[in-house]
Amino acid sequence: MRLNEEKVFKDPVHGYIYVSDPLIWDLINTREMQRLRRIRQLGTSYVTYPGGEHSRFSHSLGVYEVVRQIVQAFARNAYDWPSEVNLLVMASGLLHDIGHAPFSHALEKVIGLRHEVWSERIILDPSTEVHQVLAAHSPGMAEDVAAIIGKTHPNKLAVSLVSGQLDADRLDYLMRDSIYTGVDYGKFDLARIIRVMRPHGGRIVVKRSGLHTVEAYLLARYFMYWQVYFHPVSRSAEVILKAILKRAQDLAGAGREPERTHFALTALFEGRLTMASYCALDDTVLFNAFNVWQYGPDQILADLCRRFLDRRLFTYVDAPPTDSAVYELMAGRVRAAGYDPHYYLAVDETGTVYYDYYLGAAGDLKGDSALFLWDEASQQLTEMSSLSEPIKAIAQEKQALRRLYFPEDVPAP
Amino acid sequence: MRLNEEKVFKDPVHGYIYVSDPLIWDLINTREMQRLRRIRQLGTSYVTYPGGEHSRFSHSLGVYEVVRQIVQAFARNAYDWPSEVNLLVMASGLLHDIGHAPFSHALEKVIGLRHEVWSERIILDPSTEVHQVLAAHSPGMAEDVAAIIGKTHPNKLAVSLVSGQLDADRLDYLMRDSIYTGVDYGKFDLARIIRVMRPHGGRIVVKRSGLHTVEAYLLARYFMYWQVYFHPVSRSAEVILKAILKRAQDLAGAGREPERTHFALTALFEGRLTMASYCALDDTVLFNAFNVWQYGPDQILADLCRRFLDRRLFTYVDAPPTDSAVYELMAGRVRAAGYDPHYYLAVDETGTVYYDYYLGAAGDLKGDSALFLWDEASQQLTEMSSLSEPIKAIAQEKQALRRLYFPEDVPAP
Amino acid sequence: MRLNEEKVFKDPVHGYIYVSDPLIWDLINTREMQRLRRIRQLGTSYVTYPGGEHSRFSHSLGVYEVVRQIVQAFARNAYDWPSEVNLLVMASGLLHDIGHAPFSHALEKVIGLRHEVWSERIILDPSTEVHQVLAAHSPGMAEDVAAIIGKTHPNKLAVSLVSGQLDADRLDYLMRDSIYTGVDYGKFDLARIIRVMRPHGGRIVVKRSGLHTVEAYLLARYFMYWQVYFHPVSRSAEVILKAILKRAQDLAGAGREPERTHFALTALFEGRLTMASYCALDDTVLFNAFNVWQYGPDQILADLCRRFLDRRLFTYVDAPPTDSAVYELMAGRVRAAGYDPHYYLAVDETGTVYYDYYLGAAGDLKGDSALFLWDEASQQLTEMSSLSEPIKAIAQEKQALRRLYFPEDVPAP
Amino acid sequence: MRLNEEKVFKDPVHGYIYVSDPLIWDLINTREMQRLRRIRQLGTSYVTYPGGEHSRFSHSLGVYEVVRQIVQAFARNAYDWPSEVNLLVMASGLLHDIGHAPFSHALEKVIGLRHEVWSERIILDPSTEVHQVLAAHSPGMAEDVAAIIGKTHPNKLAVSLVSGQLDADRLDYLMRDSIYTGVDYGKFDLARIIRVMRPHGGRIVVKRSGLHTVEAYLLARYFMYWQVYFHPVSRSAEVILKAILKRAQDLAGAGREPERTHFALTALFEGRLTMASYCALDDTVLFNAFNVWQYGPDQILADLCRRFLDRRLFTYVDAPPTDSAVYELMAGRVRAAGYDPHYYLAVDETGTVYYDYYLGAAGDLKGDSALFLWDEASQQLTEMSSLSEPIKAIAQEKQALRRLYFPEDVPAP
Repeated sequence: MRLNEEKVFKDPVHGYIYVSDPLIWDLINTREMQRLRRIRQLGTSYVTYPGGEHSRFSHSLGVYEVVRQIVQAFARNAYDWPSEVNLLVMASGLLHDIGHAPFSHALEKVIGLRHEVWSERIILDPSTEVHQVLAAHSPGMAEDVAAIIGKTHPNKLAVSLVSGQLDADRLDYLMRDSIYTGVDYGKFDLARIIRVMRPHGGRIVVKRSGLHTVEAYLLARYFMYWQVYFHPVSRSAEVILKAILKRAQDLAGAGREPERTHFALTALFEGRLTMASYCALDDTVLFNAFNVWQYGPDQILADLCRRFLDRRLFTYVDAPPTDSAVYELMAGRVRAAGYDPHYYLAVDETGTVYYDYYLGAAGDLKGDSALFLWDEASQQLTEMSSLSEPIKAIAQEKQALRRLYFPEDVPAP
Repeated sequence: MRLNEEKVFKDPVHGYIYVSDPLIWDLINTREMQRLRRIRQLGTSYVTYPGGEHSRFSHSLGVYEVVRQIVQAFARNAYDWPSEVNLLVMASGLLHDIGHAPFSHALEKVIGLRHEVWSERIILDPSTEVHQVLAAHSPGMAEDVAAIIGKTHPNKLAVSLVSGQLDADRLDYLMRDSIYTGVDYGKFDLARIIRVMRPHGGRIVVKRSGLHTVEAYLLARYFMYWQVYFHPVSRSAEVILKAILKRAQDLAGAGREPERTHFALTALFEGRLTMASYCALDDTVLFNAFNVWQYGPDQILADLCRRFLDRRLFTYVDAPPTDSAVYELMAGRVRAAGYDPHYYLAVDETGTVYYDYYLGAAGDLKGDSALFLWDEASQQLTEMSSLSEPIKAIAQEKQALRRLYFPEDVPAP
Repeated sequence: MRLNEEKVFKDPVHGYIYVSDPLIWDLINTREMQRLRRIRQLGTSYVTYPGGEHSRFSHSLGVYEVVRQIVQAFARNAYDWPSEVNLLVMASGLLHDIGHAPFSHALEKVIGLRHEVWSERIILDPSTEVHQVLAAHSPGMAEDVAAIIGKTHPNKLAVSLVSGQLDADRLDYLMRDSIYTGVDYGKFDLARIIRVMRPHGGRIVVKRSGLHTVEAYLLARYFMYWQVYFHPVSRSAEVILKAILKRAQDLAGAGREPERTHFALTALFEGRLTMASYCALDDTVLFNAFNVWQYGPDQILADLCRRFLDRRLFTYVDAPPTDSAVYELMAGRVRAAGYDPHYYLAVDETGTVYYDYYLGAAGDLKGDSALFLWDEASQQLTEMSSLSEPIKAIAQEKQALRRLYFPEDVPAP
Repeated sequence: MRLNEEKVFKDPVHGYIYVSDPLIWDLINTREMQRLRRIRQLGTSYVTYPGGEHSRFSHSLGVYEVVRQIVQAFARNAYDWPSEVNLLVMASGLLHDIGHAPFSHALEKVIGLRHEVWSERIILDPSTEVHQVLAAHSPGMAEDVAAIIGKTHPNKLAVSLVSGQLDADRLDYLMRDSIYTGVDYGKFDLARIIRVMRPHGGRIVVKRSGLHTVEAYLLARYFMYWQVYFHPVSRSAEVILKAILKRAQDLAGAGREPERTHFALTALFEGRLTMASYCALDDTVLFNAFNVWQYGPDQILADLCRRFLDRRLFTYVDAPPTDSAVYELMAGRVRAAGYDPHYYLAVDETGTVYYDYYLGAAGDLKGDSALFLWDEASQQLTEMSSLSEPIKAIAQEKQALRRLYFPEDVPAP
């Protein structure tokens, strides 16, 4: 069934996002999807790039649109692709971030669960609108979508369009984050990437002539990580955010919970998050809490909240020695300046968000994460980094960034 | 005094925003400016244009940048321009929106004061960081900035760069809103507009050869009003927002204040907003309150909040007759469907945000709002609409849009 | 039949131009189409806009691509459109400029035939590759294409996609000329225009909600005419070009033909252009001739050629009185400065390239040139200018530009 | 002295090109500069990328504009830069391509002199307008400009802005060629590159924080070489062009010169090019000659000319073995098909246009071609490839492309 009239969203990245299937339209209008309008895609990056204020909602529409374009291209070229999964992968692309918490990376430590788990839960829980829409469409649809997002679905091809080395998620966010932040990196030729992708032997491969197009995409990622995602100032805001959450949790644990501003936060600190309270969490719940707490009785919490809201961030030194001597030295100086190092001194290791731009942590050239090029003439598959010197170079580069953050009035080591 | 090293912000609209003066840098870092990061530039437009999620903060930086480019061009061309006011107008451009409340137009009815008044108050109040930075720069600076923004400053030329027919505010927001929403309207040649502007006889005029460039700018405005600012779906969200605020105020007035989520909201409903509580208001305070209230005891408030958050908006009919018969008819139907028309039926008149794209409400061809073109050869000033048929056309067009909004399950008239 | 693999051209305007039909591919590779690579789209505009150096070849590909997108959209939406003419209109869009001479407007006066006539001749002449490719595709195809381009084809709908108020020709050249010259006008939302177009009762109409989108397109045209197509400096180069051709023809007529550099030029001046010599004409034939003639024995021809090549253009006065007094005055001054007014004084009337941006010379609101909007709800067609003040304004504006051109060292009137 | 009013050119790459100095304005208006309007920047690339039809004239304006922006930035930041050479380097940037012949690489073999030599000659020859304008400006100016372009000027800093690892020439052409061809590569952040460049110890270095910005620029070059400059189809057109010139020269040498269409061509084949005839050469002279010769008596010349004009190009095999066996085999097949291998079989080695994207042929890490980064904190210079894995990778990659070209109807090896 198709919508009477195709719906469109105007979008700065793709021009238009086209919706002709009622299932997609109904999913977009669920409250769980609408919640993503209130979660910023780039977390704390806005403190560095004022333009980077876009939400996970517009990114999710973008991922859907990229999936739609890919499966349409597969159909047009009559590739060996099971078109009966088209709607499934489009829905999965749309919903892939449904479980994100506000400032996910920081909050997950407090929640104790990764957002991927929540994505599956939300899709499978009969109380959510997302589940109801999927279940009403066809039996098993919710389970299939959850399996695609959870990478447990037997159709590996379908999985890899949503989560793979060349997936719709990355294809959208690299371009979107680049356009919104205004940086001149992160651009590549999406139309041509889609044209050189094809299903082959159960995986998505790339036509040999598309080598340089895919190189450009992988290098876009390299640049975006360095210029945007790893930016030291944005990381400083994240360090403070984590300190706020730690302090609030510590206070709650000590029976001195900060002023209640939203039931989901209370539930969070008490470790009894339900589906309903999880789905009520968004950026505005955290911001409003910090806004109230900046005037609250606990001096540490108030100060950290004010720093976060007013962008009075910590400074840092790059690549401090890994032994504990520098940390101890700085802990002394932080204390001497009147701060508690527990909240005012932090090592930030991008090891924790480590990425080698190409193969992922495993570095597995045979596994799912490697990209293969298909040469029609010789009928051969070749792993990408063996054909491209720059990709081999960035695949080998291990980026274990470490930075030590502390207040500006503390003398640097 | 100049900063040791020029600071820059990357910006999708202007490429870069350049800051070389410490006063500007310090103003950007005040908490009142940082608050604007949490107020969306386009209010409820994001419900129609998912990309339109940018804040008043990035717009304010943009206005500053446009002013900077204009005064630099005036200096480079040695026009008759008092360069000693350069810093004053750059600071005024940066701060011109400092008094904005979240969703200003809706909130101003509850607050009972326009945001322009708050802008002046914030700049003049010794308790704000903005005031302190300005006062520390030089005596009278805060007063001068407030006078520029309040249009009472004796230097009319300086005033008109910030608030005039061809001011930095509009030059930035038309381009910015166009780029972020992704629409293909609202573009014009900013570099050339700046090149054809010049001070002449106490006002900003435009070189005769710039006629078509300025036409394009005024038509950009025409298109943006129709395609973005007046969009019926965005207006529907605003209608619901106003209903929420009305209901909350009514409840508070009746001693049944909804759950307290932020002290500034309580102060707002009790009519005792202080400078501190006003400056704590932002979008997230409202969103968090609606988020809590959607589960609260009052059914009307809860339903309206859910509608707003989940984008279950009202439908509408265009241009209903102006007599009261249709309203009465629909009030009956709304009631019959189980809704209170006081909150569930609204006439939205863009007459209240009426704009004639060119001359403003007054339509005064002699006054401040008219644009004059300067012909070097004949040494004559000519009012713009007498030289341009399309501008004359849109200047004469009176756009008094009226729409009647109500829930989707109520039969339309 | 479809090509084994879709061919693509990279294009700065449309991103990619997609060719999947062998007929289109074969037509592109004919020598008559390849000739268009050597004819600039914008004639003499490059003297004002250095970037405007693109050819009729890339424009022709663009027109084909726009037709392709339109008929695809018609098919996707199952509109009442005879899809059996798809290939016919795509081929016609591609070939619509096939008969263009170099600097058509100037050369047509010498040739004595309009390029439209040559387009039909080339398509119908069995000696051309274009004809052979069409005839080999199917009997009658060449005749059908010629009839579409000559506007005599019975399928008016098909004709109007190639030559109408909202045709693929204009949709491409406005955007293309805008992008290559680098001006900030001429942009509109092509994807949305295609989405609001539909066949209705034998003509292409526009959905009512597309009003502002089509307004933007018509205003783009208004701006491009003023800023690019009517530019006085480009017109000056055209005035000199016409003087060169007049002088060369006069010399040839007097038995003093300038040095022979190409057989087609000789044929041209002797009034015996054959199909083969017409198809050998291109910009480079003229430029090379001027290049040689600048060193030839005739002083007038040599001087005019040098002026054209070295961009030593005539100056002008705007809107001279229409009586002959000024012309006589200036003829005297031109003569006094040592020039022959026959070649060194010219009235340029854009009356001859007159355009009212909307209705064409006829101004016929009922005829083919008017644009109608279709309102689904009321099932009514309404003529566009009655719904849009700015379009009414530019439709009424009669632009009869007159300029008087002469050498810079002649005193202006 | 400055122009009364700044002149501007609209430009798709830089937005505007600003000219405020009369020397620059006068140089632009010389006939030698205007000639560059008739020489395509990308030679035969238009056969692959229809949009790549821009001229060396607009590129030259672009190089001037980039130099202007760089020296302005140096002045604004009060770097250690001799501002008295500003005009000299701006003029040199503008004139750096003044000696280019049409299709330089192909023609230089016939002419026997590189275009760089002609650039210096044109600037120093008293008969040229370029020389006269420079000499009129100040004694020695012409010699200085020639020395900058010839890299013999003692001010190495000034030389390196025009010809260096990070020079205005490359900064313009990478962006320009990318925009006009429409490819999505070749973009980088020009504004930021200019901001991180600075003179240091007699060379241009880059601020340490600009590492990734410069990486993006070098990788842009890598992509442009592979996707545009080395494209096999464009190279095929160049192979045919060389064959035409060889055949014409052979015929002329044998007393059978093809029909005379321009005195400069005759002079070229007779090896007696004067300054005047060199300066009369442009693309149109060659195209017109080929246009005439395609109907001439020599079958080989006529066929080759028709192939070039009608885009009936040779096919190729990639990377043939380097021993002579394959060549001999194919020579036999070419002969068997009725072609003369002297003109119809060619090895194209991009070794001849070899580029390692970073260091040039010398690979000299200490020399002029290496790029150094300046770390303010440590006061140290570090060679770039030691800081960047991807740059090290492409700097090491030796790209010695070899292709064997022959007519399509000859069986491939």
